[in-house]
Amino acid sequence: MTGWVRIAGLGPGDDALVTPDVQAAIAEATDIVGYIPYVRRIAPRDGLRLHESDNRVEIDRAKHALEMAEAGHRVVVVSSGDPGVFAMASAVFEALEAGPKTWRDLDIAVLPGITAMLAAAARAGAPLGHDFCALNLSDNLKPFALIEKRLRLAAEADFAMAFYNPRSASRPEGFARTLEILRECCEPERLILFARAVSTPEEALSVVPLADATPEMADMRTVVIVGSSATRQIARNGPPLIYTPRSVPA
Amino acid sequence: MTGWVRIAGLGPGDDALVTPDVQAAIAEATDIVGYIPYVRRIAPRDGLRLHESDNRVEIDRAKHALEMAEAGHRVVVVSSGDPGVFAMASAVFEALEAGPKTWRDLDIAVLPGITAMLAAAARAGAPLGHDFCALNLSDNLKPFALIEKRLRLAAEADFAMAFYNPRSASRPEGFARTLEILRECCEPERLILFARAVSTPEEALSVVPLADATPEMADMRTVVIVGSSATRQIARNGPPLIYTPRSVPA
Repeated sequence: MTGWVRIAGLGPGDDALVTPDVQAAIAEATDIVGYIPYVRRIAPRDGLRLHESDNRVEIDRAKHALEMAEAGHRVVVVSSGDPGVFAMASAVFEALEAGPKTWRDLDIAVLPGITAMLAAAARAGAPLGHDFCALNLSDNLKPFALIEKRLRLAAEADFAMAFYNPRSASRPEGFARTLEILRECCEPERLILFARAVSTPEEALSVVPLADATPEMADMRTVVIVGSSATRQIARNGPPLIYTPRSVPA
Repeated sequence: MTGWVRIAGLGPGDDALVTPDVQAAIAEATDIVGYIPYVRRIAPRDGLRLHESDNRVEIDRAKHALEMAEAGHRVVVVSSGDPGVFAMASAVFEALEAGPKTWRDLDIAVLPGITAMLAAAARAGAPLGHDFCALNLSDNLKPFALIEKRLRLAAEADFAMAFYNPRSASRPEGFARTLEILRECCEPERLILFARAVSTPEEALSVVPLADATPEMADMRTVVIVGSSATRQIARNGPPLIYTPRSVPA
């Protein structure tokens, strides 16, 4: 049997947002590898081994997947959202580069998915409809000074901004500091979207001006989108609707 | 009949990258509206009207969709990639905000898709695996001076960068200028991915250092991804493999 690795994106939560490409890979797999809540999204079946692992063991998980593929298994590494955006794809390639040279000949591919910021943006309108950036606010893997530098430059560039991993129980202060930095760089009316658990039963969206944003509005299941200076809210009955126009006048 | 509008992303080209959510909307639609090549991706069937329109008439197309929905039609506005990323969603909301107040009560939703930069990144490895930005290089809708400002700030922030609409026959000079600006801001070894028509029969990928990049490597079907200073290439037999590590040492 020829093994392979597919690093697949499960999208934000709803199975209707999983591509047929990813569904096909899961159907052919012998082994599923991933963080516990993502592996639990896969329906068990005969002949499919489910390997759940905890957060923060991404490199061990990546090595395990590569070892199994070398031994002939068909392995799908699952991420939520898109595997190439703050998820497992980079971890697998870090392990591959550091590992035995034979791993470089493995059949390995990344299967894209609907990443959280685009699911959140779609639900709220089109806040990322013009130039934007995506930042991981976790300082587990980089110094907060770099996060601060990027926030200030992104504000100066007038990018809309999407924040992943804005806040966790173990680092509650980083997002509070992020809001302080934004208040130094942006006007108080700047629109901010808090989008939690989009496309799941726990989905919750809110849009507030920067002046009214508080750290408690975000947790690890929240994507935060900060509009550019041009982002607008359309008044209507029903859920919030915000968008960023396509054009910037000269 | 109650009308609605769905602004749907068809992904980069391969039907295996169209979500079931988008497939379901198309199956229920009475009318499909969009730019000619995207509408031609929809299989004709009885009871489905296909409304093709040319490039650069996005607002007219958006109004047409909203008018039909108000008249009771079930309208899918199709974009390639994700409709919220340099595509039709913002155009529809611009038209909605400027139009009759009754439009604000319409049943309207954005259905996300696999955007070009994430399809391209997946095919090449994980070049967007850390903080990144997305820029539309077309100066049809904004002054080039703003593009230049954003490029310089993005380089200073050490974002990976994804460029949409890098070059067209009518504006060949903008991407040449973009490469000049990058050469002023980044080292000559900086990795650049040119990904053309990903997931279609015309797919072509190449990775070159900035020093070797030329304007002719891009056209309107190309997404260009510029790595951050940390983006690495893994030497192996077969197609290029590049990724950006997840961590930045303090």
